[in-house]
Amino acid sequence: MKFVIIGGDAAGMSAASRAKRRSPELDVVVFEQTLDVSYSACGMPYNLADPTKEMDDLIVRPARVFREKQNIDLRTGHRVDSIRRQEKEVIGSTLNGETFSVPYDKLLIATGASPIRPQVEGINLPGVMCLKLLDDGRRIKKYIQENRVTKVVIIGMGYIALEMSEALRARNIQVAMVKPRPTLLPWMHSDLSEVVRQELLSNGVELYPGHSIKAIETGGSGLRVVCDDVVLDGQMVLVAVGVKPNSELAEEAGLELGPSKAIAVDRRLQTSDPDIYSAGDCADAFHVVTGQRTWVPLALRANRAGWAVADNVLGKNVELEGIVGTAVFKAFDLQVARTGLNVKQAQEAGFEPAEIVIKSRSRAHAHPGSTTIMVNMVGDKKSGKLLGVQMVGKEGVAHRINAAAVTLHARMTVEEFSQCDLAYAPPFSPVWDPLLTAANQLLKRL
Amino acid sequence: MKFVIIGGDAAGMSAASRAKRRSPELDVVVFEQTLDVSYSACGMPYNLADPTKEMDDLIVRPARVFREKQNIDLRTGHRVDSIRRQEKEVIGSTLNGETFSVPYDKLLIATGASPIRPQVEGINLPGVMCLKLLDDGRRIKKYIQENRVTKVVIIGMGYIALEMSEALRARNIQVAMVKPRPTLLPWMHSDLSEVVRQELLSNGVELYPGHSIKAIETGGSGLRVVCDDVVLDGQMVLVAVGVKPNSELAEEAGLELGPSKAIAVDRRLQTSDPDIYSAGDCADAFHVVTGQRTWVPLALRANRAGWAVADNVLGKNVELEGIVGTAVFKAFDLQVARTGLNVKQAQEAGFEPAEIVIKSRSRAHAHPGSTTIMVNMVGDKKSGKLLGVQMVGKEGVAHRINAAAVTLHARMTVEEFSQCDLAYAPPFSPVWDPLLTAANQLLKRL
Repeated sequence: MKFVIIGGDAAGMSAASRAKRRSPELDVVVFEQTLDVSYSACGMPYNLADPTKEMDDLIVRPARVFREKQNIDLRTGHRVDSIRRQEKEVIGSTLNGETFSVPYDKLLIATGASPIRPQVEGINLPGVMCLKLLDDGRRIKKYIQENRVTKVVIIGMGYIALEMSEALRARNIQVAMVKPRPTLLPWMHSDLSEVVRQELLSNGVELYPGHSIKAIETGGSGLRVVCDDVVLDGQMVLVAVGVKPNSELAEEAGLELGPSKAIAVDRRLQTSDPDIYSAGDCADAFHVVTGQRTWVPLALRANRAGWAVADNVLGKNVELEGIVGTAVFKAFDLQVARTGLNVKQAQEAGFEPAEIVIKSRSRAHAHPGSTTIMVNMVGDKKSGKLLGVQMVGKEGVAHRINAAAVTLHARMTVEEFSQCDLAYAPPFSPVWDPLLTAANQLLKRL
Repeated sequence: MKFVIIGGDAAGMSAASRAKRRSPELDVVVFEQTLDVSYSACGMPYNLADPTKEMDDLIVRPARVFREKQNIDLRTGHRVDSIRRQEKEVIGSTLNGETFSVPYDKLLIATGASPIRPQVEGINLPGVMCLKLLDDGRRIKKYIQENRVTKVVIIGMGYIALEMSEALRARNIQVAMVKPRPTLLPWMHSDLSEVVRQELLSNGVELYPGHSIKAIETGGSGLRVVCDDVVLDGQMVLVAVGVKPNSELAEEAGLELGPSKAIAVDRRLQTSDPDIYSAGDCADAFHVVTGQRTWVPLALRANRAGWAVADNVLGKNVELEGIVGTAVFKAFDLQVARTGLNVKQAQEAGFEPAEIVIKSRSRAHAHPGSTTIMVNMVGDKKSGKLLGVQMVGKEGVAHRINAAAVTLHARMTVEEFSQCDLAYAPPFSPVWDPLLTAANQLLKRL
């Protein structure tokens, strides 16, 4: 049997490795359009923060290891241009213009996602960069070095934008962030996003929310981002306004698409064609809290889905339950985490949500070094169930969110969660964990 | 209605405060034999580490606030000597020798636990100390100061002993720890307890496990702990070999006792006498994993049980599910955490356990500052359920354990847990959280 994989990052290489490990005689071919496979894309901001580090440090496993040790037919620089479902083959072209066609028995589309490039004049000027591929990281690193960049304008204020603002400030580069929408993190409770805003400001990041971008021009110290009422200049412009799934191949092949035009897959990761699977940032998932399809491109899901595809290709019947939308990021000294739904999402999904915001402490009464933790917790008045949690604080946030994530997977009520026996010791928590305090308070509103 | 409470620490004062808050006309009387109420006993080692701090910083709410603001009839220096269940009254005596008798409609026994003092010659010599009450903390602090203590022998190697070793080393005091049993933390997987052992040794703590204590004598630099084959000397001896529930009052009143002679209570915290409740370190609890009664004296349970008693006294029918045995402590730069059962406990409870030990990292591939996290995970071959987790590492352990604790409360299988959508960002975790890696590995053995 021939198992063909389009895309050689998290989902694709996880599937290839697992399939080959479980069934060494299986013929596994991977087509990757770039020259890089299996790297930690999420690590790029942190790598960029340190000029002494090589971007290639982020390569988890080089191509030759997959080829030589794992006996995977990995073809880098190979772009797949179309899928012929009738003929069960893929057609593509190499970097040096040769074409190829390869038949498959089972196909995995793991083409990932691409940065959205807004339709703005000057978006293609030199010095206007995106951060998605390892090559983007290399380019940015080189550009900062060669142009002695001292000021960067970031368009967008999402996770990557925020992580990049920290990375650039660590190199003492001035940062101005701008976006059309008026609020910093619109999905976040305003009390919590205000804490993030203050953290950015106190670290010297200039924030310009609510400014439409008219054009990017050359001029000033190199480039100018022209908005309706402000002009921001720097030697580099980083565009980080979000990503979109790379689902064109699938769409052209007539496969069903789901939310945000991600490739629709069932719990077995099968597309609308039973011989074609999809996994990673190009594919959708079921949301455990809503039961609905959703698109949340994150690394853990990509790896897990890659494994599940391999298992299913080999005849095991593996179903993935789905995601609860857990995410965490660092913003300077803050840890910011979320899982599940916010109030607005809960309303849209048909729940009758109540929410609470509490302030608690990261350590026990009188323990030195204690800092504030803020928790926003959402529950359903009808069922009593926990629907979502957001948290922000300087310590004890990033891992604490996992307790709430498990609670969502277990479909527990807020009351059941409030009874959980969580850990306490003075250096790590108040006696009542901040999540328990939030649950106790939220119970009064349910 | 008259609600009488014996004991004015976590459980007792939680119950008193909540009862009075919910029903201001309720007559609430609290008898506390010491002069201190509502203090953070767990904070004492950290307070002792800092000679500039007052021990009284640990008082969360002083007696006068309970009396004046909350209108609770709080009588400190009042020891209850017996409970007359027929007459529904308590009899006691004050510090200055007066006797009292007070009737009750509902009674809460929240007498806590006491340090075990081994029957060893010299155990009552001056300079041989225990750490349980706030007054113990004050006495130890004063003793260290006045006697310019430079070397301490700690008998015992449990949580408090370990926390005290760190506190004393922080003051540059030499520490030798000794106990009869041969292993450092017998409940812990030996691969993990070895990490703790190395941490203690590398911080200059001398360890003498497997040494029976024959006597404590005066001599040497002040005191000498004489074992069969070694003599340890110091100016102070700290006895920290564990605690026992203060259940004598209950036993003499004919109430049923449970494991470790703790007072047996049902899920409503009622003892075998329906008008008498018990909560806190003197009472037992149901273990969620085994369904059996257990005795684990910890602060969160005490607070939670105090609240539940107040609610039940006021006619609400509150049942506490029970505990899963979650605990965390700090040992110098290490975080050590546990929840649920270890293999031995699982076997004794009738499960068919399998276990795994894995080493993972605290941060992502190539992220600076990453350290080792070790996880021991236990599952049941028959049901597939998670039974317990132990973890040790320099960061990301104390709060991560809570995800496993919730999993135990939810009675999830290891496979269900392995599907959970846990948080990932490079500064906080590998893509596969160490707990997920452990679950994935354990699944192969179930």
